[in-house]
Amino acid sequence: MVDKNKLARQRLKLFGEGIVADILKKKQPVIDLPVRSVTNVKFNEKSGTVQLGNKMAQRFLFNLAHAKKFMQTVEVAKISNDLLKEEKHASLRDVFYMAKRSIAGTKTNIVDDQVESDKVIEDLELISDMSREQLNINANKMGSVAGKVIVEDKGDKIDWSKLGSGGWSIPSNVEEIQFAKVNAQYVIYMEKAAVWERLHEDKYWDKHNCIIMCSQGQSTRGIRRLLQRLHQEHGLPVYILTDFDPWGFYIYSVLKFGSISLAHISDQLAIPEIKFLGITADDIEKYDLKKHFIKLKDTDTARLKQMGSYEWFTKNKLWQRQFKMMKDFGSKAEIQALSARGISFISEKYLPEKIKNKDFID
Amino acid sequence: MVDKNKLARQRLKLFGEGIVADILKKKQPVIDLPVRSVTNVKFNEKSGTVQLGNKMAQRFLFNLAHAKKFMQTVEVAKISNDLLKEEKHASLRDVFYMAKRSIAGTKTNIVDDQVESDKVIEDLELISDMSREQLNINANKMGSVAGKVIVEDKGDKIDWSKLGSGGWSIPSNVEEIQFAKVNAQYVIYMEKAAVWERLHEDKYWDKHNCIIMCSQGQSTRGIRRLLQRLHQEHGLPVYILTDFDPWGFYIYSVLKFGSISLAHISDQLAIPEIKFLGITADDIEKYDLKKHFIKLKDTDTARLKQMGSYEWFTKNKLWQRQFKMMKDFGSKAEIQALSARGISFISEKYLPEKIKNKDFID
Repeated sequence: MVDKNKLARQRLKLFGEGIVADILKKKQPVIDLPVRSVTNVKFNEKSGTVQLGNKMAQRFLFNLAHAKKFMQTVEVAKISNDLLKEEKHASLRDVFYMAKRSIAGTKTNIVDDQVESDKVIEDLELISDMSREQLNINANKMGSVAGKVIVEDKGDKIDWSKLGSGGWSIPSNVEEIQFAKVNAQYVIYMEKAAVWERLHEDKYWDKHNCIIMCSQGQSTRGIRRLLQRLHQEHGLPVYILTDFDPWGFYIYSVLKFGSISLAHISDQLAIPEIKFLGITADDIEKYDLKKHFIKLKDTDTARLKQMGSYEWFTKNKLWQRQFKMMKDFGSKAEIQALSARGISFISEKYLPEKIKNKDFID
Repeated sequence: MVDKNKLARQRLKLFGEGIVADILKKKQPVIDLPVRSVTNVKFNEKSGTVQLGNKMAQRFLFNLAHAKKFMQTVEVAKISNDLLKEEKHASLRDVFYMAKRSIAGTKTNIVDDQVESDKVIEDLELISDMSREQLNINANKMGSVAGKVIVEDKGDKIDWSKLGSGGWSIPSNVEEIQFAKVNAQYVIYMEKAAVWERLHEDKYWDKHNCIIMCSQGQSTRGIRRLLQRLHQEHGLPVYILTDFDPWGFYIYSVLKFGSISLAHISDQLAIPEIKFLGITADDIEKYDLKKHFIKLKDTDTARLKQMGSYEWFTKNKLWQRQFKMMKDFGSKAEIQALSARGISFISEKYLPEKIKNKDFID
């Protein structure tokens, strides 16, 4: 196995050596970087993900508009290198505070706002071709998982099937965990912890030999990487279960195609093969959920329209049909509306039926 | 051990039998309930918690203003009873959808809004003298825990010291877990998952023989009950670690004294003996954190003023001093500001020093 820690430090060292070499050659130090604005983000038909284009930019030390950002890049590279050396991980917020110190002899801070350090961390992902998790900088921690899986992490063997009603708390960084045993046919990822608790209490993962994973709202990078690793390393299909609303569809879109803001790291986060399990517009009709409709707000309608215009959805008839049906309904519905049919309707009827019939949207 | 499930069903049965008895006696059915508005909430000096007063109200079936709520109360009692019989748990949202059905022969729903079912669930807590968790109705799931503790839950033995970098994901309902082993001197509860990951990576709980627990933002009822059980059943002191801001102080206030909206259940949620560990105004000075100040917003100042006027804070000189110092600073600060002193400053210096010196606010 490649020592990722060593690799990351080598890459950061290369970055530093490039700057030193420029200086020794009495050349102006420069950092070459792909442009990361929306004008350089494209949907790649072949990979099926959102990717950065070829436009490049240069960051010069002796340029008033670049100098501060140049310094910030070097500072954060140093912080990351220190973390890697100490084998410790910091949050984005930690890195901000670590970089927020005044430049010797001045009252100017290296960074004043977390947006600045966050941006440079993303730049460093490109410079080093390592994810920020591999640079020992973690995102938020969120979510739970259960299933017949054993992982090894920090010297512990953790059996996801033996963790009572709680499940394993997903760390922010899953780069170093090892899968010792994976006995599952597929993964269901759901946005709501309450739905996860329902499926968990019903032992859905045991009866149907699968893995259940949830967040609470947003999908963290830890969750996305864990889903991707289960998919890539163990060939497990991943199914997405959300509310029937534009936000639920958006969660799916980001997990599958990647996002504009993280386009530079789509390869490590997106899973182009995932499928949308529900709640679909057809489920609304089939399972008689119209009585639980909630009117779309203006922001919902705007989001729906925006999604319909995404390059990766424009030619997709199945999705355009979903968007249109939601628009025509003028309404959204929550997944818990299924509980009106019985508390375990979701685990005894809805999910087994959907999965047996391969009733997905792709 | 008392069978809580059986007990809850007995209490609900008693409630139903009371109504039936009224009907058989040709009396108007009535539900007696303490008034749950702010006018009937008082700070109880003796218990050290916020409690309901003695004002009672009656809910009549044959009263146009009461009839719907009467019906809702009976309906939700039935839903809870069904859940208890089936040994299943539902979320507040589930219960709402289960109760949201039209009354036979009409187009009127039993409940139209979750606020209605939530309110009656709280009423049922009073009627049955059981918490809603004991009525098999769960709140949100959130948070992680680690330490030298073994719990038994749903037939699994879970060792909180052997769960890798993730920890145990705290369930929404911890009523049925059993403590098989508790080897710890105290519990630190922190509001931020990123701080928890810092302490966990540094094996703080192992080195200092304690339990570390976090949420992400709000403290769920599952977390509050888990803290309370560790405190009451195992005599562990509980220390609270938050940002230096009015919101952090408020988290402490709710955990310690209870809250106005849940005053009827303070006995089962509040922990009057907990102590505030930090970040205090004195820490700001001692650890040189002023350079990381963030200006108080108007909402912060308003919240601070409101807290200062809470009955349980008015005579507390230590807290009034904290409020005044924050007001005078005109600023708040985040706990991660400690990272500016070094990534592990919090676990190697700040916490050991504070705890050794018993530098708490009570």
